[in-house]
Amino acid sequence: MRRVYVVGVGVSRVDRRFSDSLRSLFAEASLKALDDAGNPSVDAVVVANMMSSRLQEQDSLASLLADSIGLRGRMGFKVETACGSGGSAIIAGYSLVASGLANVVLVGGVEKMSDYPTKTVTRALAQAADAEYELFYGASFAGLNALVTRMYMMKYNVKHEVMAEWPVLMHENGYMNPYAQLRFKVTVEDVLKSPVIADPVRLLDCSPLGDGAAAVVLASEDYARRLNDAPVEIAGLWQATDCLDLASREEIIGLKATRIACEKAYRMARVDARDVDVVELHDAFTIMGLLSLEEMGFAPRGEAAKLVAEGRFRVGDKPQVNLSGGLKARGHPVGATGVYQAAEIVMQLRGDFPGLKASKAEVGVTENIGGTGASVSIIVFRR
Amino acid sequence: MRRVYVVGVGVSRVDRRFSDSLRSLFAEASLKALDDAGNPSVDAVVVANMMSSRLQEQDSLASLLADSIGLRGRMGFKVETACGSGGSAIIAGYSLVASGLANVVLVGGVEKMSDYPTKTVTRALAQAADAEYELFYGASFAGLNALVTRMYMMKYNVKHEVMAEWPVLMHENGYMNPYAQLRFKVTVEDVLKSPVIADPVRLLDCSPLGDGAAAVVLASEDYARRLNDAPVEIAGLWQATDCLDLASREEIIGLKATRIACEKAYRMARVDARDVDVVELHDAFTIMGLLSLEEMGFAPRGEAAKLVAEGRFRVGDKPQVNLSGGLKARGHPVGATGVYQAAEIVMQLRGDFPGLKASKAEVGVTENIGGTGASVSIIVFRR
Repeated sequence: MRRVYVVGVGVSRVDRRFSDSLRSLFAEASLKALDDAGNPSVDAVVVANMMSSRLQEQDSLASLLADSIGLRGRMGFKVETACGSGGSAIIAGYSLVASGLANVVLVGGVEKMSDYPTKTVTRALAQAADAEYELFYGASFAGLNALVTRMYMMKYNVKHEVMAEWPVLMHENGYMNPYAQLRFKVTVEDVLKSPVIADPVRLLDCSPLGDGAAAVVLASEDYARRLNDAPVEIAGLWQATDCLDLASREEIIGLKATRIACEKAYRMARVDARDVDVVELHDAFTIMGLLSLEEMGFAPRGEAAKLVAEGRFRVGDKPQVNLSGGLKARGHPVGATGVYQAAEIVMQLRGDFPGLKASKAEVGVTENIGGTGASVSIIVFRR
Repeated sequence: MRRVYVVGVGVSRVDRRFSDSLRSLFAEASLKALDDAGNPSVDAVVVANMMSSRLQEQDSLASLLADSIGLRGRMGFKVETACGSGGSAIIAGYSLVASGLANVVLVGGVEKMSDYPTKTVTRALAQAADAEYELFYGASFAGLNALVTRMYMMKYNVKHEVMAEWPVLMHENGYMNPYAQLRFKVTVEDVLKSPVIADPVRLLDCSPLGDGAAAVVLASEDYARRLNDAPVEIAGLWQATDCLDLASREEIIGLKATRIACEKAYRMARVDARDVDVVELHDAFTIMGLLSLEEMGFAPRGEAAKLVAEGRFRVGDKPQVNLSGGLKARGHPVGATGVYQAAEIVMQLRGDFPGLKASKAEVGVTENIGGTGASVSIIVFRR
């Protein structure tokens, strides 16, 4: 297997970007990434997106977007695993390079949710869950996360005021990130007093709705050496599925797909959880952030919130988690999120992240979830 | 690059299958393919589908479908390039095996269009074209193909009665195929008298709306040798894009993406057009079948219809084209079509295709188009 490197990254500011389109957002991030990589010749474009088919009524997205940045004619396809599309697209792009089919691949994630009523977007997001077994009965995506949150709180006797330390930390981190969507600090009291979305989940437990695009340029070893003095290697990666509906799971309070993907990706990279310096994980809701910390090996079961409250996971700790502000504060442009995470980890390892900088970072990991844990990709990066 | 083989194939009957779901169709084809392969342990599932997000309001399709056939936990993602999704999914699956990330990959395509009013399906299919530059102005997918048809007829002075030989041949072939959707013969007169869909395209120039699923099992060389006495090799493949909207094309009467993809795939397989024994190409409309024959190197420009009328491309000729009946008669369950084509070519090379059998078949090629030529994958198979 050929080694694969990230030779360029680009992100756009996450926000309600009413005056932008899928095309303009994608171009903004992709052209930055290609510029960062020294504008190499690109063999293939892998696009990550969840909702364009439903919201923009547009399929064939890869042809559309490749052409929009002057890459007409290149190989191009879209990869979708709902909110986990970005991580899965990087895996598809990685294997194009690792196999030798391509030397340079642009992986770009994009999502555009503004311009549509919240009700429409909420329904579109719910398509990440099981349409026949869950949505038909009136479940929303927040509702399913509320169910997991309630069970977690009861099983481990965790109070909401302790869990609320997570969004507080994320807003602190996001406050420093120039392209984060929510750049303000909040207190535990703010979280507990914010409107109920799906009891016990409150507004400040949820990632916001926003638009954005991110891109990474992957290259084989010889191309990477030519393009970049210090390319970041993708040292290991895997993606695992779980069943889509919560009711059929072996366990509801947990992320089995995260465990499977971590085990495979860590082994491939020859690291374990203790080696990881910096992490971007998928906190679409507070509960997903806490479960991810536990399943990735950074906290014992039921204790993630307590560790956050005790001051762990900040700059200088090991690992340093979601210095971008995470989905909670950087934002969650759904299909693009996994690509944002990869770009952020690469910038942390290179030392040029524009927000809070990790104090020491050689090994970084991203975790990108689709559905309520139905698809999880883990990618290990090494400087 | 590791060599990749097809060790199992499975197809379901294409039809208006009102009593089937995405789950049941996918399971039917996938379990057949896995059984055909000797039920190996599967590392990853790549799903090809275009319309579930719009019609079934279901994303996260790979997690859902992997779980439905007992493959919960495996890697799984969806690949989309509109009507070309099947071919692109095979390329993604191929690179997972060729890179060494996976040893055995199931690629399954599925589409379900019945249960919805024709108007809804027509609108969903149109999403293969450019929503902002074409659909906004009222274009349908048949309308765009009509435009290309008219220009082709004018430029090369080809009469509709000559072009109509294509659907006549496809219905002859499909008549022999037990899982084809349209199993009846038609005459040139039938084609010319069938209702106008978008002038000059008539009903019998169009592939029908239908449901179906197809699957292929890909394996690395060592796994393939263990699983199968005579696995079929994927000797070359590529996918190329073109711009989505017709108006921005360098040429409208032609398939530049087919030319690019053929050149790369033929070179990788070390074959040229004269070496090809058997072909399944993407005749969603008569014009696409004829242009494909020309762009793949089997007919001079503007002469494909004349060659068909002269009796070419039948059993015993070189190449033998669309013995399945093609999209016209086998049917076109959109996201699954490219996987049907691959399964059909593999069966022709093995000698166990249940319909019209090729007389001599060592090298086979599939061509799968997304949009009106905006994405084309070419796959070369060798016995």
